[in-house]
Amino acid sequence: MHDNSRPEPSGRGRGRFITLEGGEGVGKSTNLSFVVNYLTQHGIEVVQTREPGGTPRAEAIREQLLAHDSEPLDDDAELLLVFAARAQHLARKIRPALARGAWVVCDRFTDATFAYQGGGRGIDKERIASLEHLVQRGLTPDLTLLLDMPLEAAEARLASRLESQGGSKDRFEQERRDFFERVRTSYLSRATAEPERIVVVDAQGDLASVQSRISEILKQRIEQWR
Amino acid sequence: MHDNSRPEPSGRGRGRFITLEGGEGVGKSTNLSFVVNYLTQHGIEVVQTREPGGTPRAEAIREQLLAHDSEPLDDDAELLLVFAARAQHLARKIRPALARGAWVVCDRFTDATFAYQGGGRGIDKERIASLEHLVQRGLTPDLTLLLDMPLEAAEARLASRLESQGGSKDRFEQERRDFFERVRTSYLSRATAEPERIVVVDAQGDLASVQSRISEILKQRIEQWR
Repeated sequence: MHDNSRPEPSGRGRGRFITLEGGEGVGKSTNLSFVVNYLTQHGIEVVQTREPGGTPRAEAIREQLLAHDSEPLDDDAELLLVFAARAQHLARKIRPALARGAWVVCDRFTDATFAYQGGGRGIDKERIASLEHLVQRGLTPDLTLLLDMPLEAAEARLASRLESQGGSKDRFEQERRDFFERVRTSYLSRATAEPERIVVVDAQGDLASVQSRISEILKQRIEQWR
Repeated sequence: MHDNSRPEPSGRGRGRFITLEGGEGVGKSTNLSFVVNYLTQHGIEVVQTREPGGTPRAEAIREQLLAHDSEPLDDDAELLLVFAARAQHLARKIRPALARGAWVVCDRFTDATFAYQGGGRGIDKERIASLEHLVQRGLTPDLTLLLDMPLEAAEARLASRLESQGGSKDRFEQERRDFFERVRTSYLSRATAEPERIVVVDAQGDLASVQSRISEILKQRIEQWR
């Protein structure tokens, strides 16, 4: 958390670090663009990025994470690849941007690792926390917008998207429902533990209403941080 | 360390894990083959492997580590990639081999991470140790043969190799001498700290003498472990 007594003692610079989180189908991409435009219209230099990835080398690690291979990827190896990409992203893009005063808006960050690898896949959260500590060296987002809706609503959105791509709704529903429930529960419990940093945004309803909620949060934080 | 009270309490199986370590030019490849042949001739099933790498996915991570790119690889990202490859290697090759009773002979392992990333590059050894703990979960080599010779002798061997490949001896001598001195010092200090596991093998002199020393060590360990 930050107040007005800048520059930061961590030497991280004057920029702010905002992350967007949420499960599949909650409208993260659309609202990420909205956040970037909102901040830009308020005269803020914004660097938009994503995880895993964000630099050429980190994107190459992302490809290894997403690659289908006859050799299954070990859980520990996956977790270490996620944090290797994060270390590269922090060193080459996020920290330099914050240092020069830009604000960074990132599509997913370490909360997603806790939600997907921890909640979803059952990897021990202490192991994730030890890597978070090792790689981030105290740098955490200033604000995290957690887009949330009940799984049924997200599934309905995803199903219509999958159908338009010729995909199968059944497979998603049958195999992955429990997984995504655990992801959502993990996200919400993190928001409960860090209510000042992680703001839960009700992502249901029409887009204008959702973006009105996001505008209110951003307006209040911009004022607070000035 | 192991005694005769097997099976192992760690559930790692009855196989033995032997690693070969040493700087550039000490004759590691030749002596690795010698170790594999010696054990095989004594009726032991041997799995020969290397780090970073050892499985298709771990070899893909190795390629990222060795890739020349306009984007420099961050030290933390490099360290995490090394341990991601190691986690995959342990899960898919080393642990299964040990579990079925095979002996694993590996060209480099975590001692090399301490020597090269720690000693050579100056990465905090506590950071390496925390990843070692996280990934290996107590599994360490039963025996490490550290091939050692003075830097001048290794350089002379490397120089003749580089010259025959049309490479430059000067660049090696000028830029990397300090680095390899630190690597050697790091290896030797680890051997001092763990004299039972890490046996220093004088790698100078004719190959027959070196391999005679290695044979003695292997003969003694095979008897000890039976």
